[in-house]
This record gives sequence, C-alpha cells and structure tokens, in this order.
Amino acid sequence: MSIIMKGSEVAAIIQQELLKQIERLNQYGITPTLAIVRVGARPDDLVYELGVKKKMRTLGIKCPVFAFPETIDQADFEKNFSSLNLDSEIHGILLFRPLPKHLNEKTIIDTINPLKDIDCMSPVNIAKVFAGEETGFAPCTAEAVMKVLNHFGIGLEGKRVTVVGRSMVVGRPLSMLLLKKNATVTICHTKTKDIENTCRNAEILIAAVGKANMITDHFVAPDAVVIDVGINVDSNNKLCGDVDYDDVAPKAGFITPVPGGVGTVTSSVLAVHVVRAAKYLNKIEER
Amino acid sequence: MSIIMKGSEVAAIIQQELLKQIERLNQYGITPTLAIVRVGARPDDLVYELGVKKKMRTLGIKCPVFAFPETIDQADFEKNFSSLNLDSEIHGILLFRPLPKHLNEKTIIDTINPLKDIDCMSPVNIAKVFAGEETGFAPCTAEAVMKVLNHFGIGLEGKRVTVVGRSMVVGRPLSMLLLKKNATVTICHTKTKDIENTCRNAEILIAAVGKANMITDHFVAPDAVVIDVGINVDSNNKLCGDVDYDDVAPKAGFITPVPGGVGTVTSSVLAVHVVRAAKYLNKIEER
Repeated sequence: MSIIMKGSEVAAIIQQELLKQIERLNQYGITPTLAIVRVGARPDDLVYELGVKKKMRTLGIKCPVFAFPETIDQADFEKNFSSLNLDSEIHGILLFRPLPKHLNEKTIIDTINPLKDIDCMSPVNIAKVFAGEETGFAPCTAEAVMKVLNHFGIGLEGKRVTVVGRSMVVGRPLSMLLLKKNATVTICHTKTKDIENTCRNAEILIAAVGKANMITDHFVAPDAVVIDVGINVDSNNKLCGDVDYDDVAPKAGFITPVPGGVGTVTSSVLAVHVVRAAKYLNKIEER
Repeated sequence: MSIIMKGSEVAAIIQQELLKQIERLNQYGITPTLAIVRVGARPDDLVYELGVKKKMRTLGIKCPVFAFPETIDQADFEKNFSSLNLDSEIHGILLFRPLPKHLNEKTIIDTINPLKDIDCMSPVNIAKVFAGEETGFAPCTAEAVMKVLNHFGIGLEGKRVTVVGRSMVVGRPLSMLLLKKNATVTICHTKTKDIENTCRNAEILIAAVGKANMITDHFVAPDAVVIDVGINVDSNNKLCGDVDYDDVAPKAGFITPVPGGVGTVTSSVLAVHVVRAAKYLNKIEER
C-alpha cells in the first residue's frame, strides 16, 4: 500500500515558516500585499480568487482584487495595470489569464515588474527558470510539486523522472526545476508513442495533462512515486486528477490525492512568493 | 553501415537560399551586417572569429569586429555596446562570452535589442525558445542540429530523443526545439544514473557534453540516429566529438562526423539569423 502525500501537511509547514517572516516584515511596517487583477468574471476565476483571498487573509497578507469590466479597452487597462505595477504598497500581481481577446496580453506581460511577477509571466522570470537561476519566481504549481517531493524526502539526483504534459505553467518549467535538482527528465505529451512504457520507466511520474483519470496502473512502475497535478471533473461530476487514484494507489510507493494534494500547496507557494517579493522590493535580506 | 550526415551538404542548401535573400536586401540598399564584439583576445575566440568572418564575407554579409582591451571598464564598455545596439546599420550582435570577470555580463545581456540578439543571449529570446515561439532567435548550434535532422529527413514526431548535456547553448534550448516538433525528449547529464541504458533507449541520440569520445557503441541502439555536437581535442591532439565515431558508426543508422558535421552548419545558421534580423529591423516581410 502506498504512502499518501497529503498537501495539507506540506502547506502547514510552509505556513509556519511564512508567519514568522510576515511578522518580521510587519516589524518594518510592511504588510505583504498581493493584487489580484481580473478582467470579466469567469466562474473558474471567481472560485480560484476566493481560495486565494482566504489563504492570504489567514496569513496576514493583504489581497485586494482589481476587477475590470470585460469591455475595458487596451489603453485604459494598461493605465490601470501600470499604476499597480508602480504602487510601492503592492508587492505581487496575480493576473488571471487569458485576457479577453481584444486585449493584448503580451504588452502586459512584457511590462510587469519582474520583482512583482509572482507567478512567472514575464520573460525575465521564464528565462531564469529555464536557465536554472533561483533568483526569480517559478510558476506556483510547478514549485508546489517540488515542495511536495522535498517534504516527503523523495531524492531527485540521478532519478528517472517522467513529466506528462508540456504546458508553460507546469510541464516545461517543472522539467527545468527537476533538472536543476539533477534528475534525468523525460517530457511526454499527446504525441508520445507508447506513452505507457515511457511512464512505466519512471521512478517518479508526474501527470500534468488535464485529462481525467488518464494514468492507470499500466503506466506506473511498482513502488513509483506518482504526483498528480491535474484538476478535472469526471463523468459523475466529481473532482478528480489525471491519475486514476483507485487503480494506481495499490501499486505506487507514494501518491498525491486529488483534491488534497498539489493543489493545496499551490496557494501556499503563492504566499511565499508574495512575501519574498515584499522583501526584494523593500531590500530586506532573505533569512 | 551508417549514412554519414555531412554538414557541408546542409550548409550548401542554406547558403543557396540565403544568397537570394541577401540579393533582395541589397535591392533595398541594405547590406546585412553582423558586429562581432570581443573583449580581450582568447585564442579560441580568435579561431571562431576567423571562421565567422570568412563565412559572412563569402555570403556578402558585412562583419566588423569591435575588439576591446581586457582592461576596459564597465561604463566604457556599456557606452560602446549601447552605440552598436542603437546603430541602424548593424543588424546582429555576436558577443563573445564569458566577459572578463570585472565586467557585468548581465547588464549587457539585459540591454541587447532582442531583434539584434542573433545567438539568444537575451531573456526575451530565451523565454521564446522555452515557450516554443518561433519569432525569436534560438542559439545557433541548437538550431543547426534541427537543420541537420530536417535535411536528412529524420522525422521527430513521437520519437524518443535523448539529449546528453544541459547547457544553455545546446542541451536545454535544443530540447525545447525538439519538443516543439513533438519529440519525446529525455535530458541526460553527468548525474544521470545508468546513462548507457537511457541513451540506448533513444531512437535519436544527441551528444552535447564536451567530453572526447564519451559515447561508445554501448550507448547506441542499432540503427539509431546519432548527432554529435561536441568539439574536443583527443589525447593525440586531434579534433574529435563526444561520440567515438569509429566505434559507433558501424552500429548507427545515421551519424554526423566531427569535424564536418553540426559545426559546419552553425555559422550558416548565424548568417540566417543576421539576414532575418536585417529584415525585422527594416520591416521587410519574410518570404
């Protein structure tokens, strides 16, 4: 039977450390602040926003929402975004994407202050993740996977790790974070031939595809570590991951549940980034 | 017996196409121009410089060298670099790195006009390669490998490709270019355990480590495609690659020689980038 890697355990430890750091910032008169920027009101965004706000408030991080109507034009949006970008009391900016089609997302991405770019939109942070430099911000979900692996003592050096999915929010950046830790990384995707075999070859298998219950026990080597980044809804309208949990759990050595796995850690990583941004921007040294 | 993938064949075809494009630029009164920027005079740099200059002149690309003394200070270097960056008659800038330690390389890298950054130093181009966007410039050597594969009709979709080496000039960007073509990419390096097996699993094996003759026939599956990016000097002071050619050639399906393989194509790719930069900067459409 496998060990269940609960996200709440990881999040609890991160938060403990965070609270100390936030207290220290408060002593400098600084309240770490995350601005959520949203255009329109997609149901998914609203759910995520609610979760983020709750988490930030619990920790003592301010979290104002700047919601703009879907009809806002480029000039107006840029002006508003720029004022958040310049506001010294805002340390992190979380922009919900994609923006409506009539807005030019690239202009925004290119102008965000990389020090406030806590979810890795700007080329500066993307290039840093690619190069293995740790001074920037990696995408929160990719980093959450690293926190889970680290918390459960899963060594990476020299290990065969297969990442299924090549998105810019998980698959690609996560592959680079794993490479930085000296894992031997294989990136799979929809065009991979014999994907079962490639996955079964992995000591650590990470699914980030967004396809409900796609990874069955045929994909998994005995005692492998299985990390499920997917958040999907199955045919019974129930939340599920990319991994068929009931099928895989008996075979895996370690496994993350969905819900309650990586997703639970992501917003803690977001908080870590906001606090780090508040330190950078106020030139307070890391401790 | 394997098919030898000669770089000269690939370069010849690239050059044929390039000459047409350069002629077209000339009709607009534009001579594509590459500025080589060098601080000090390392022997390796001088050899490379000579090769680049010769190639550019053959094609009708101007190639002035801006050589600065090793003692130049940051302010002076930045001023000079900035004037090249702004000069509308210079389309590409090739900076020899690393710079001497007293100079801040990062400032230069962050200021280069991405449109002139023909060998992928700037975060903008690095991020584009990572994201699979084709509007920037990939590192020339990584792209040269893609040209060789394409010229010899080696399909990539769904193929198992193993890249040995994770540098920012070859291993990492090349992995992303391969991923963009739907290959299943595995990145190996010095910390990979059982590297022989991982390499032998590949249908296409690419060595970019800089270790003379490291890849022997044990690393290669029968009929695999073997691309050698290494340029080393062996114990007899003879130029050689990362692949032990005599050992591997009988087993491989296709193989690049060293010298005369990928290296031969790299300067042609550099020329392609200069010509493309000249078009971008003068707002002439690609044909």
